[in-house]
Amino acid sequence: MTYCVAAAVDSGIVFASDSRTNAGVDNVAVFSKMHVFEAPGDRVVVLLSAGNLASAQAVRSILRQGTLEGRVDPAGILGLRSMEDVAGLVGETVRKVVSRDGPMLAQQNIDPGCTFIVGGQIAGEPPRLFHVYPQGNYIETSRDTRYIQIGETKYGKPIIDRVVQHDTTLNDVAKCLLVSFDSTMRSNLSVGLPIDLLSYETGSLRVRRTRRYDENDAYMREISRIWSAGLRKAFSDVPDISWS
Amino acid sequence: MTYCVAAAVDSGIVFASDSRTNAGVDNVAVFSKMHVFEAPGDRVVVLLSAGNLASAQAVRSILRQGTLEGRVDPAGILGLRSMEDVAGLVGETVRKVVSRDGPMLAQQNIDPGCTFIVGGQIAGEPPRLFHVYPQGNYIETSRDTRYIQIGETKYGKPIIDRVVQHDTTLNDVAKCLLVSFDSTMRSNLSVGLPIDLLSYETGSLRVRRTRRYDENDAYMREISRIWSAGLRKAFSDVPDISWS
Repeated sequence: MTYCVAAAVDSGIVFASDSRTNAGVDNVAVFSKMHVFEAPGDRVVVLLSAGNLASAQAVRSILRQGTLEGRVDPAGILGLRSMEDVAGLVGETVRKVVSRDGPMLAQQNIDPGCTFIVGGQIAGEPPRLFHVYPQGNYIETSRDTRYIQIGETKYGKPIIDRVVQHDTTLNDVAKCLLVSFDSTMRSNLSVGLPIDLLSYETGSLRVRRTRRYDENDAYMREISRIWSAGLRKAFSDVPDISWS
Repeated sequence: MTYCVAAAVDSGIVFASDSRTNAGVDNVAVFSKMHVFEAPGDRVVVLLSAGNLASAQAVRSILRQGTLEGRVDPAGILGLRSMEDVAGLVGETVRKVVSRDGPMLAQQNIDPGCTFIVGGQIAGEPPRLFHVYPQGNYIETSRDTRYIQIGETKYGKPIIDRVVQHDTTLNDVAKCLLVSFDSTMRSNLSVGLPIDLLSYETGSLRVRRTRRYDENDAYMREISRIWSAGLRKAFSDVPDISWS
């Protein structure tokens, strides 16, 4: 199982994904579930994926074709003019892969579907954040719904619902997503460290802040400990039940 | 959607279910999703249900046959000798109803399945708590897993994982289940008030503490407010993220 989440606020977008392996890089920085397409000064596009791993990897491989060796494909992620076009391209690629691999997988009752969070900023636009469904269609976040989760989403949702507002700082959003991961990992053993975190600042058009949290990370252990203690305190502050 | 949960600790079992309507009573106290079979001094059996409502109601109707008008059917809930026999009877009844109604529902792609939490105490046994699956088989809680949730379970799970231990007091368990409902209702609009709560004390063999919380209930609003404030405080106590 996977858990990925991204939240867009006025000052930027924070992305987080669980991840246990690490793949190679060219001009595309590739972690296991977080993929960054960066052309400094022009755009930052971040993809998080969940669902059928072979499908998700096939989609990413196809998307990377347009970005290899400095060549910019005008119809690729580094060439398109808007984030919405990028979301559309990801959706179209999902459809292509699922149409190709789906019939054979269906014979084994294997779901070929994969889901993407697609977010970032292209020069000339504000930062935007999309959820691309396994059917290839997509939705964009709004002032009412500022975040997108994919994979094992429910355990970690309540804290995001309570914390993330349009004016929440990027560091508070990042902290909130890590707490959301802590809740998820505690209730579902299939989501685990390391976590990849990326905080994108509106207008920067480059990646400045990324961090990987593994099981030896002191801050992650600290979050878990202090959050647990805080929850117990919050619980003890709730007045006792009255039966009358 | 439904959310029902029960947690067994040394001092008893607490049951909670969401519910919007209220049905009639005979010697079986019937709320919408919480059904109590009581023979004071001999046994208390509580059923919570989720899933296909027609199936769940059919199961309960059949189970009530053995309890009407003072007649005790030795093969019914008021006659069986152990809670495990009661769980077996509920499972067998689920199978009967699903076998009867399932084929016609399958033509419309409607799932006939329903799930039950079955708990309580029969004289001569300690309190016991079971989860009866839509297939009619069941599991019992243990020292390792003390609670059972059915329906919309995930949002409200983290707080139970953190609070409920074998020596938690019944009032703290009850408070915890209400907080669990508050988290669930906040993240999923399909689960709503009123909530039925029943706290059963080990060895009492009668129902002493039940309570219904509706939208006008001051305590439920207070829980929501204080818990929210406590979470925000807990969150602010988590140290700020460091990117280095």
